[in-house]
Amino acid sequence: MAPRKPSQDSAEDRLIARHFGPLATHPGALGLADDAAVVAVPPAHELVLTTDAVIAGVHFFPDDPADAVARKALRVNLSDLAAKGAKPLGFLLSLAITKDIDDRWLKKFAAGLRADIKKFGCPLLGGDTDRTPGLVTVAIAAFGAVPRGAMVLRGGARPGDLVMVTGTIGDAALGLMLRQDAGAARRWGLDSSMRDHLLRRLARPEPRNAIAAALRRYAHGGMDVSDGLAGDLAKMCRAARLDAVVDVARVPLSRAARAALAAEPALIETILTGGDDYEVLAAVPGRDTERLRHAAKQAGVAITEIGRVSAGSGRARFVDREGRALEFARPSFSHF
Amino acid sequence: MAPRKPSQDSAEDRLIARHFGPLATHPGALGLADDAAVVAVPPAHELVLTTDAVIAGVHFFPDDPADAVARKALRVNLSDLAAKGAKPLGFLLSLAITKDIDDRWLKKFAAGLRADIKKFGCPLLGGDTDRTPGLVTVAIAAFGAVPRGAMVLRGGARPGDLVMVTGTIGDAALGLMLRQDAGAARRWGLDSSMRDHLLRRLARPEPRNAIAAALRRYAHGGMDVSDGLAGDLAKMCRAARLDAVVDVARVPLSRAARAALAAEPALIETILTGGDDYEVLAAVPGRDTERLRHAAKQAGVAITEIGRVSAGSGRARFVDREGRALEFARPSFSHF
Repeated sequence: MAPRKPSQDSAEDRLIARHFGPLATHPGALGLADDAAVVAVPPAHELVLTTDAVIAGVHFFPDDPADAVARKALRVNLSDLAAKGAKPLGFLLSLAITKDIDDRWLKKFAAGLRADIKKFGCPLLGGDTDRTPGLVTVAIAAFGAVPRGAMVLRGGARPGDLVMVTGTIGDAALGLMLRQDAGAARRWGLDSSMRDHLLRRLARPEPRNAIAAALRRYAHGGMDVSDGLAGDLAKMCRAARLDAVVDVARVPLSRAARAALAAEPALIETILTGGDDYEVLAAVPGRDTERLRHAAKQAGVAITEIGRVSAGSGRARFVDREGRALEFARPSFSHF
Repeated sequence: MAPRKPSQDSAEDRLIARHFGPLATHPGALGLADDAAVVAVPPAHELVLTTDAVIAGVHFFPDDPADAVARKALRVNLSDLAAKGAKPLGFLLSLAITKDIDDRWLKKFAAGLRADIKKFGCPLLGGDTDRTPGLVTVAIAAFGAVPRGAMVLRGGARPGDLVMVTGTIGDAALGLMLRQDAGAARRWGLDSSMRDHLLRRLARPEPRNAIAAALRRYAHGGMDVSDGLAGDLAKMCRAARLDAVVDVARVPLSRAARAALAAEPALIETILTGGDDYEVLAAVPGRDTERLRHAAKQAGVAITEIGRVSAGSGRARFVDREGRALEFARPSFSHF
């Protein structure tokens, strides 16, 4: 245990007051000057809770800009709330920073948080800041509300449901390859806008909170795609004890991903099993897919039908145009 | 960013299922097999939220037993809920473990959590587990409920209130000195039971959740003492914009702390400014101190009147038997 540093008003208190106090405008945050926050959950609603941490060198690059780190840390949690159909109520931030983290970094980190607090209507309610001799670690716990009994469950799919997914799949996994392999962009024939697109998708997930209410209304089951579409759909199938089959040709890909895939067809495995998509995967009854698509469109989110759920034993299959099932060496990626 | 390890059912999922799944008996935890938990907040109640992390080498010794680490991580959060008058609803665990953490460590960690989940009625609702090349870090976010408007605020004290504190003060700070200085126990003339008492108070805080309801009923203001009595009372005074004066002779000390203090009178500063007490500091109107003391006694918690709040500008003073004010070089300790 490190010797403790004496202080009048502790360095931690000063840091919090300077950088995070101004973000805590929600009255229940008590200006981050109490030991806890207090919030009302709307009547007839339940509380939805999730937590996810990001660690330097594991979930983000140590030289990533601080505002991007903050936004990614918050967004991976917002993505869980979105997929569960929950409206954000707020979040708690547990931040461990290393000695080299200076005021400029913290200012930028706070600016990133501020932008997303506003964008997603998810207030900072409280936090804890420590110096660590280890690695910068940002652990966020996020809370939302759903009408009682209305949370979208991972295992809620029913036979006959259609499998739908938001946005595009595989971009972040390809973006990670670009960061790790300087020659990849040229090999894949990507122009700079395609390259930027993939890198941005890795650095800044776009959680689909705008369609949370529609998911609650129309989806039988759902989850966010964070560990790869193939592995996450398999989790949904196991939770529901049902099978699903996905038509690989229908999986929505960005222009950049299509270009990379055309140049290197084996990338289909990376695209379908790489992580960090932060899209929503949902099982939706056929009668409601059009309504969900319409509601998503109103919210500016694309959602695509990619497959179908059927009775079974909890397996997800991905078939190509010729009806052949793809076999993945590794259906799910993990930082673990 | 580390290369990702492929897996069928990810190592993280298996670890969670094996060690933490069995703890998640609350129905809202969904067996830790969904992306979020869901809990009801009792009608006419508000949600109280807090988060605190403990880091190996900062807040605990790397060789501390895993069950003690788990319990300390949970208890520092429970202590905040207690001081706010909140009844625990549950917690989220964000655990970062290093490569050397094995199954035995995790089993013991889970056993420690299990014991306190039961003891404090605070269920595990969800979590996130990562491997870190850094240091073992346990970030917990804990939630409780209070009747609407009833949270005990840090700044709630009123002029004329009496200052009360639970348990005994300074034990953990002396325990830390014992761990850092092998000769201290002999110098202070401690027998082995006194030594064990101080070490135990460091390793295992005793959060005062048993008196949360009584605090809500009788205390105008309060907080938990985690950064030293002197500094934390000063925080309460600043929050209330009032002064307080504490009669140092009335500050409750354990037999071990009294022995150490008799041998080394300068330890009074460590006792009053050292951290990790996890007692409750409360401002209570004179008419209610007897009722609070009685309720606390019923709950098995000692609570002692140590001073008085008065109009002022936010200063806390500690005076000795002769009425002289003690001056602290460092009123508040910080790991920061």
